[in-house]
Amino acid sequence: MGVRAGIVVTGTEVLTGRVIDRNGPWLAEQLRAAGVDVGRLVVVGDRPVDLAAALRHLRPDHDLVITSGGLGPTADDLTARVVGDVQGRPCRLDEPLRQRIAARVEELSRRRSWRGDPEAMAAGVAKQAEVPGGAHVLEPVGTAPGLVVPPAEGRDGPPVVVLPGPPSELRGMWPAALAAPAVQAVLAGAVPLLEDTIRLWGALEADLAATLRRIEPLDGLEVGTCLRDGELEIVTRYAPSARPVLDLLRRTVLADFAATVMSADGRDVDDLVAAALDARGWTVATGESCTGGLLGARLTARAGASARVLGGVDAYANAAKTGLLGVPAALIEAHGAVSPPVAAALADGARQAFGARVGVGVTGVAGPGGGSADKPVGTVHLAVVTPAGRYERALLLPGDREQVRQRTVVAAMHALRVALG
Amino acid sequence: MGVRAGIVVTGTEVLTGRVIDRNGPWLAEQLRAAGVDVGRLVVVGDRPVDLAAALRHLRPDHDLVITSGGLGPTADDLTARVVGDVQGRPCRLDEPLRQRIAARVEELSRRRSWRGDPEAMAAGVAKQAEVPGGAHVLEPVGTAPGLVVPPAEGRDGPPVVVLPGPPSELRGMWPAALAAPAVQAVLAGAVPLLEDTIRLWGALEADLAATLRRIEPLDGLEVGTCLRDGELEIVTRYAPSARPVLDLLRRTVLADFAATVMSADGRDVDDLVAAALDARGWTVATGESCTGGLLGARLTARAGASARVLGGVDAYANAAKTGLLGVPAALIEAHGAVSPPVAAALADGARQAFGARVGVGVTGVAGPGGGSADKPVGTVHLAVVTPAGRYERALLLPGDREQVRQRTVVAAMHALRVALG
Repeated sequence: MGVRAGIVVTGTEVLTGRVIDRNGPWLAEQLRAAGVDVGRLVVVGDRPVDLAAALRHLRPDHDLVITSGGLGPTADDLTARVVGDVQGRPCRLDEPLRQRIAARVEELSRRRSWRGDPEAMAAGVAKQAEVPGGAHVLEPVGTAPGLVVPPAEGRDGPPVVVLPGPPSELRGMWPAALAAPAVQAVLAGAVPLLEDTIRLWGALEADLAATLRRIEPLDGLEVGTCLRDGELEIVTRYAPSARPVLDLLRRTVLADFAATVMSADGRDVDDLVAAALDARGWTVATGESCTGGLLGARLTARAGASARVLGGVDAYANAAKTGLLGVPAALIEAHGAVSPPVAAALADGARQAFGARVGVGVTGVAGPGGGSADKPVGTVHLAVVTPAGRYERALLLPGDREQVRQRTVVAAMHALRVALG
Repeated sequence: MGVRAGIVVTGTEVLTGRVIDRNGPWLAEQLRAAGVDVGRLVVVGDRPVDLAAALRHLRPDHDLVITSGGLGPTADDLTARVVGDVQGRPCRLDEPLRQRIAARVEELSRRRSWRGDPEAMAAGVAKQAEVPGGAHVLEPVGTAPGLVVPPAEGRDGPPVVVLPGPPSELRGMWPAALAAPAVQAVLAGAVPLLEDTIRLWGALEADLAATLRRIEPLDGLEVGTCLRDGELEIVTRYAPSARPVLDLLRRTVLADFAATVMSADGRDVDDLVAAALDARGWTVATGESCTGGLLGARLTARAGASARVLGGVDAYANAAKTGLLGVPAALIEAHGAVSPPVAAALADGARQAFGARVGVGVTGVAGPGGGSADKPVGTVHLAVVTPAGRYERALLLPGDREQVRQRTVVAAMHALRVALG
């Protein structure tokens, strides 16, 4: 099995979905890179009893446990105390640490012009300096220190690494956590697993399952398949010694799904679109209706986008389609705003308005209102215009408003990829 | 403690963060509405041993366990079998169910023009009809049936509700899961907890902690505080009998933080902006640079947006700022594209171009490149122009490219809220 880590994410706001957990997946990725496999991730609210239960649950079959969150200055931030209790190391005030945190808080207050009540600040600082006896302290990146807490002498169990909840603080502290002696001792036994990713667009899960069944057993491979917004992803984790088995899987899948393979080297659709534009030195502009800017946001999400993205018009109102992108009012009148000719006119208009080589037009009914028998919710028309030609697609997407918008963006990225291919 | 449920989300793709879990938070919300408290949420990969461990972990202190995912036709979809094993109910082929699933697959294949291999399809259907003996079957919404699996006779433990992973299928099946007799028996003991939310904008966590400490103990309240992109949220869950304690908390917080309370009735910034625009009958348009359409996407995320949002220009390139939004080239030359006058000109230009009553301009350095000593990464200028006046803000936001863009959108929503207030 190799070295295994468990992750505990704390916070009622994560458990109830008010905040999306960015730490668990990031930690899983870092651990895998270090050759550590993640067995389970537990999300708990702010109740000490649940955090303690999660720690006890992971202890028997994990070599390392990592927690995120619950290190703030407020009363519901209890991670240090609970971890100390579970590891048999009660908390106590670390006075030099208190002074270092106080200095940091003072500096941050000055820099960010905080005007807090001094007494409240001091109480928060003292609370954050209460750490389990004998813990290895990771210096604060924000104001909360991290901890590496081994079990008390005579106790069994893995060391627990305690990290703060804000993602930037957790990430900033990670190198120090990895370097802590108790963590290094665990990592010494790790064998890195490699990862291989093949992505299909428009293939069926059942067909893929049949292909995989044909070549089973795939000893030494962990094959995970995942269908997401029309992309079917095959992610295989393997030890270097299982490379020949992986090669068999790759040969078979790439042959069976030659028509739907979009990427066999881990690149995603964003990578492929960016590479195709850059290879031709082409720029792109968007004319969006139902997605209201989501496609533009996706195209500019990565660094370096300014080299290829000129911009876009969120032509939500029909007057904007006409006025800013030159879509003839008569065309909208004749075919409706959600129609192939209007998608094409949005693409042409975006190309013209921004002086881009490539234009993308998107129009659709995201719902929940606005649908008709003729054009139900989920009806979407896409158009891509390039110097090499035109590409159009008509879709009927399932799901609620958010899903239709999200799937429209994914489909538009693939339309761009195909049109540029 | 009342009635408690545990949630298990399966899927290596969720554990590794390739897919964001939409089911856990949704289930937590539904359960709370039904008066059931969620203790812990466990995410496991596709290994049976981890799923079994998660189920055994939740069993002792939960009255109900709910799983999502792992019901597909592929070999790594093992939830039904593992739940059956843990509950002492081995799987067996349910022939009438197999026929119903086969009919659904046939119908869906026809409707969506799937062209799968018939043998592979049949194997997938048979796999999905293998269910634990004595389980209550929830009819498929997609092709996978859900299950309610009580422990075998003579065994202890809560019933396990097994739901499919695709969010639309899980949500579609939820009413039937709630209505299952074994679930009804658990829900009979539930006392609904109510929830109260106060939101502050620009307040400090440490100050809030001090206020809360002053009025402790808050018997009967579960108070959670959460700082997110500058919004400080206080979510309190309480039984109806604890209403007087809640009132004390609300009075105290609303008095201490009068200057930073943005909402005391659960409404978020999107609600407030929409209500303010609608109350005046005003429309809005955006001129975005560094956010590339994210603000437009946010403003159009909710149903009914077309009544108040006319559209926006993602003026990523300077030529687009000049050409489409009339930002004078000399202004960009003199002050730089990231500057207060350009933010104001983007807002004016958007207002004019779309004929909107309100214009929002956003420009900034999202990074990682493009920063300078003068204008480091995170420098953002916002402008809102309304018939009633102008509002500007200069920000220096922490974080990586994604965070800066996200925080810029949140700050722009608040700028709109304040400008309309």
